[in-house]
Amino acid sequence: MQFITYQADGLPEGGVLTDHRNKVIPFYTLSKILGIPLPGQLPEFIAMAGTDIVQAIRTVLKANPETGLDRKKVTLLAPLLYPRRNLFCLGKNYRDHVSEIKNMPDLEGLPQAPIYFSKLPSTVIGPDEPIHSHPGVTKQLDYEGELAVIIGLKGSDISKTEAEKHIFGYTIANDLTARDLQHRHSQWLKGKSLDTFCPMGPGIVHKTDLPLPLDVGIRCLVNGETRQQSSTRHMIFDIPEIIHDLSQGITLLPGDIILTGTPAGVGMAMDPPCFLKKGDTVTVEIDGIGSLTNPVV
Amino acid sequence: MQFITYQADGLPEGGVLTDHRNKVIPFYTLSKILGIPLPGQLPEFIAMAGTDIVQAIRTVLKANPETGLDRKKVTLLAPLLYPRRNLFCLGKNYRDHVSEIKNMPDLEGLPQAPIYFSKLPSTVIGPDEPIHSHPGVTKQLDYEGELAVIIGLKGSDISKTEAEKHIFGYTIANDLTARDLQHRHSQWLKGKSLDTFCPMGPGIVHKTDLPLPLDVGIRCLVNGETRQQSSTRHMIFDIPEIIHDLSQGITLLPGDIILTGTPAGVGMAMDPPCFLKKGDTVTVEIDGIGSLTNPVV
Repeated sequence: MQFITYQADGLPEGGVLTDHRNKVIPFYTLSKILGIPLPGQLPEFIAMAGTDIVQAIRTVLKANPETGLDRKKVTLLAPLLYPRRNLFCLGKNYRDHVSEIKNMPDLEGLPQAPIYFSKLPSTVIGPDEPIHSHPGVTKQLDYEGELAVIIGLKGSDISKTEAEKHIFGYTIANDLTARDLQHRHSQWLKGKSLDTFCPMGPGIVHKTDLPLPLDVGIRCLVNGETRQQSSTRHMIFDIPEIIHDLSQGITLLPGDIILTGTPAGVGMAMDPPCFLKKGDTVTVEIDGIGSLTNPVV
Repeated sequence: MQFITYQADGLPEGGVLTDHRNKVIPFYTLSKILGIPLPGQLPEFIAMAGTDIVQAIRTVLKANPETGLDRKKVTLLAPLLYPRRNLFCLGKNYRDHVSEIKNMPDLEGLPQAPIYFSKLPSTVIGPDEPIHSHPGVTKQLDYEGELAVIIGLKGSDISKTEAEKHIFGYTIANDLTARDLQHRHSQWLKGKSLDTFCPMGPGIVHKTDLPLPLDVGIRCLVNGETRQQSSTRHMIFDIPEIIHDLSQGITLLPGDIILTGTPAGVGMAMDPPCFLKKGDTVTVEIDGIGSLTNPVV
């Protein structure tokens, strides 16, 4: 089961995608079956739904295998279409990625503390939506397959042991990066934030389906060729540590998105460097979540 | 005349503060007098109001000098209470500030391109609201008085000559910074984003009252002692250049906030360094806009 935002005929709606990925059940249908009010949109659902409601929805799905819209007749959108603030991101958070960029200026060495930067909410696009290559702005468009954590519960100064309580679930993200802009502007905001630079989705897997500590395979493929292949267990700062550290003095909010860094295999580190170009297709896969594919235009 | 968000008895409302700063006129009153619908809140007003409406409001104010609420009976809040994405910020954008930090690691040299980073929307507080010193998180709390540009018109790839068209107006900001976190985390997001780290306001001055190029005095005082004193003409990248450069590949939106950097005189660069502490009061003044004071708690 995944929590999704989809579009049938009209406006975007929130709902769930079944385990067989053949049916989409809108929150308004689940609300009727359960006899409790549920918000129609995923951001509001995330802010209110505890594990009890998620469990109740699982039970509904098992009892009603034929309920729902045909998956093929709807379009899956980014699960969180308009994040209400920039996405939190981590740089240099996989050991092998730190090694592969060790000879690049300003990037050498294992980080002594998490490196946080942000991406604009307007970078978010959904599955199959086009990534703009911005050929007039960058000549070095690169992919970064990443696991994204979705915060479910407000909090600050969160302890590592309490971290999972503040998570709603996980999805897939591609942290597109204009390497030339990343270096030229010194701080990374601009090189990470060109329009369409953050494909996300297709759905959010609830934390109860992927309990911590996470050890799931993560891959990134360009035109079917595997470029990145690792496991989330190779993060330098793991998810409880990130939530603990980031939340010192910063109140995390439901719907906040944290991109947890990328493993080795980025185009910048290939010899010679191999950047994305118009016509390419990029896929990020995470075991237990799924696959996110986007064309470059 | 300044555009403000204020609170009388109930919820926050949008309106204007008169030139004499003794009256507050709500948008709903202006709407009645003008006979045209106006949004009740400032973010929506900024997104719809052209210079013609701003001029019409000026005319109303002149014709109705006694209209409005007593300024003393309302509380001025941050003009944009909940920015819908992180604030854009510039680092090292005044020549004298670059000089004063030239011996600090990683900060030497004039920037070859604007340095963009962001602050979380949740950092925003209004005039007189307390800045939390977060003593458990930082030992090096520093001020940075800055001019903030408020975007009024959506656009990307904006030329320098068109930049002013995309501006709504200007306000005052204090880019509070935890210097130890800024350095420890390498990228600046975290050190710039602790809760309450961006006092803003009191009001937004429309661009027609401060035409480009801007050459206005900017000062920052700690407990009444002048620490920063400069003019906005000393920016390395001026406002049209910033809007032009930032908008290459990034769509700017109405309500976006751009902090344009701070002049010399930050606490970190004093000998010995002099950071803010509980009990201090910080004031940022910009000629033609006003004064923004906040206590440190």
